[in-house]
Amino acid sequence: MTTIIAICGSPRRANTYAALQEAIKGAEEVPGTKVEMIELGRLRIEPCIGCRRHTTVEAGPENPCPARKDDFDGKLAAKLAAADGFIVATPVYCGTVSTQLKCFMDRTAALARHGAPGLRGCLRDKVGAGIAVAGNRNGGQEPTLQAIHYWMFCHGMIVVATSTGQWPGCYIGAALTTYPIGGKKDAVLADTLGMEAARATGRRVAEVASWVAGRVKSA
Amino acid sequence: MTTIIAICGSPRRANTYAALQEAIKGAEEVPGTKVEMIELGRLRIEPCIGCRRHTTVEAGPENPCPARKDDFDGKLAAKLAAADGFIVATPVYCGTVSTQLKCFMDRTAALARHGAPGLRGCLRDKVGAGIAVAGNRNGGQEPTLQAIHYWMFCHGMIVVATSTGQWPGCYIGAALTTYPIGGKKDAVLADTLGMEAARATGRRVAEVASWVAGRVKSA
Amino acid sequence: MTTIIAICGSPRRANTYAALQEAIKGAEEVPGTKVEMIELGRLRIEPCIGCRRHTTVEAGPENPCPARKDDFDGKLAAKLAAADGFIVATPVYCGTVSTQLKCFMDRTAALARHGAPGLRGCLRDKVGAGIAVAGNRNGGQEPTLQAIHYWMFCHGMIVVATSTGQWPGCYIGAALTTYPIGGKKDAVLADTLGMEAARATGRRVAEVASWVAGRVKSA
Amino acid sequence: MTTIIAICGSPRRANTYAALQEAIKGAEEVPGTKVEMIELGRLRIEPCIGCRRHTTVEAGPENPCPARKDDFDGKLAAKLAAADGFIVATPVYCGTVSTQLKCFMDRTAALARHGAPGLRGCLRDKVGAGIAVAGNRNGGQEPTLQAIHYWMFCHGMIVVATSTGQWPGCYIGAALTTYPIGGKKDAVLADTLGMEAARATGRRVAEVASWVAGRVKSA
Repeated sequence: MTTIIAICGSPRRANTYAALQEAIKGAEEVPGTKVEMIELGRLRIEPCIGCRRHTTVEAGPENPCPARKDDFDGKLAAKLAAADGFIVATPVYCGTVSTQLKCFMDRTAALARHGAPGLRGCLRDKVGAGIAVAGNRNGGQEPTLQAIHYWMFCHGMIVVATSTGQWPGCYIGAALTTYPIGGKKDAVLADTLGMEAARATGRRVAEVASWVAGRVKSA
Repeated sequence: MTTIIAICGSPRRANTYAALQEAIKGAEEVPGTKVEMIELGRLRIEPCIGCRRHTTVEAGPENPCPARKDDFDGKLAAKLAAADGFIVATPVYCGTVSTQLKCFMDRTAALARHGAPGLRGCLRDKVGAGIAVAGNRNGGQEPTLQAIHYWMFCHGMIVVATSTGQWPGCYIGAALTTYPIGGKKDAVLADTLGMEAARATGRRVAEVASWVAGRVKSA
Repeated sequence: MTTIIAICGSPRRANTYAALQEAIKGAEEVPGTKVEMIELGRLRIEPCIGCRRHTTVEAGPENPCPARKDDFDGKLAAKLAAADGFIVATPVYCGTVSTQLKCFMDRTAALARHGAPGLRGCLRDKVGAGIAVAGNRNGGQEPTLQAIHYWMFCHGMIVVATSTGQWPGCYIGAALTTYPIGGKKDAVLADTLGMEAARATGRRVAEVASWVAGRVKSA
Repeated sequence: MTTIIAICGSPRRANTYAALQEAIKGAEEVPGTKVEMIELGRLRIEPCIGCRRHTTVEAGPENPCPARKDDFDGKLAAKLAAADGFIVATPVYCGTVSTQLKCFMDRTAALARHGAPGLRGCLRDKVGAGIAVAGNRNGGQEPTLQAIHYWMFCHGMIVVATSTGQWPGCYIGAALTTYPIGGKKDAVLADTLGMEAARATGRRVAEVASWVAGRVKSA
């Protein structure tokens, strides 16, 4: 069984959520895949303040960040650590990830190389890919995908993209747009190019995670 | 008189603050320059939730975001709108801007093309540059500077970088590092290459803002 | 009179050329603007081999690169040095600028901070913007524009983007696509969003160059 | 046996070559790894002119590009297609890959989704990582690594970075600098942080390629 976490970085349940649902369908096309979505818009996660208390003995698997009591707790950390792959989706705000996704990313410092005792490096070797939904056609999707990749590389992840298909629309992940419809909650459904890319991205994460997960476990 | 706003994107008063202080000294070397710092770590600014209420008649110069009552208010918006240039400094977290800076950026949607009535496009023609401080040597400073530029371009700003000096360390803005000292509050002071770049960046913003501000006003 | 150089980075006279023609029309909307196009596909420019002979006394305004006898000569260097602004257009190949444009960029090392005597820093304070044309919808236009900006910042240029318009398609420069038509020579003409952005980009370079050129000359 | 191709994108045998040698040592630490270096500076590869003749029946495994007779021939294409992983190293010129590496990248269009019959998609599922060597400290290494990644994603590759180590210097690949020594051929040897990252990058490619290669073959 390969476990994929699908992270929805939108504050709302709208276009990014719809794109991520499509990616989940793609992941589920790969036999033996189980996907769970984490909606950041439904969680209360406070910003990291760079205090580094997560590197001290106060911190640990049950308590990744001693400075905060919120939804980025030991239960969430354990779920992330147990996954084989990540599909990270975000609306594009000002050319990069949403504040909500950025906030989540910063708090994963507790899981990185210098992270909390018992959690350090726990996202290493996971397989990841990104999905970006923008209001403009070339509205920051590509830099946003690169920002998602950067976060993945910080954790030692293995990064994949759309991979298949003749016209993926974007080569480095799924790029979707609500243009020219605009701010409607389901505008992205009209973007068939982007929706196909979302599905391909989900399938690709599941495919490569299934290869890598087995190897890591057998190592 | 040229007015520069120096935005400190750190949750703390530490290395990014020190780098920005140096940039302010650089800006003040240009005659007729006045600089004011905004420390995001001292303000309470809630994340944008993408509701677009800033585009409605509820919003306006006194009330840029009807969905929030916090420090991103009419007074702050007026200050940003009145400036001629911006120096934006941030610690690098996960390869890009801090959550605190991202949160501020997202809220400036109220000042953009589709922003609040009376504020739309009010940052156009401002001159801007970025400063990034990372714990690793090549620890995300350059993608972070590009993320700052992206935000500036969203607002129609004019973007500059270090410009002068034989060894600026970085060509696209000031890149500083606390490596190999690590997490001490003033570690960046030992980075003479980076500190010189911070000063050059501040001077450059003030220089070009003084050219452009006059021209825009006379147009 | 403001002089703008429009650089066509395509090996062919096709879609990128058409986009650049539109940008030139935009630039010419600004009174007092004169534009000259340089088509790299019509010049013979050999790759830089990193020998640094351009930093020696062998080099100079008449002879920017002692290692090469080709079309990147003193006449071309003088033309670049005399301009007030640059519009740089390229097809997107593998997510960034064409080899032809990259080759040109590398050879401008002779005009940079450590460049040939008499040419060092001669592109400083020029105003620049980029145009990228890709076969896919989100096919690398944005990273390509960032690569063009990086080159501009290496030379101390002042970088602008689309700036105006409610739906520019892209915020950091003009992003065009030949999708879904494909490889036809004039496919990009059907991309009205991108063509409008090309025109806006040209106009913006001319506008800001007219402000800056006067100020630099009077300094 | 896992086969890794190490591509040296420098026109010279100097610092980038030295960094790549170190990466090869890292790759060879993984049992069962065989590495072959391709030095682009020793090959004659002409720029792609976007004619798309590689998509026609004229093209094929023996003749990837009908428009050119040079060292990017059927033998080189077969070698690339047979590899399990790629380490791509380049000097940073103007903030991104060298012209020599860009030229090679563009010609791999013949191996991509729309490539020559019999070669289409032949680089899919390869594992890749990048190495960038710059004259400045934050001199474009990170955007250069992102440009290398972009090319890899165009081919459906699986991208990895430094992954291990407490202070990798850079998270998204190996970033080296010749600063402050400057243009000497072996200046990079003094950059112990960067050299360690180069070794870690090579090891990482070999490690993940060994996992993936087996899985793909068994599929």
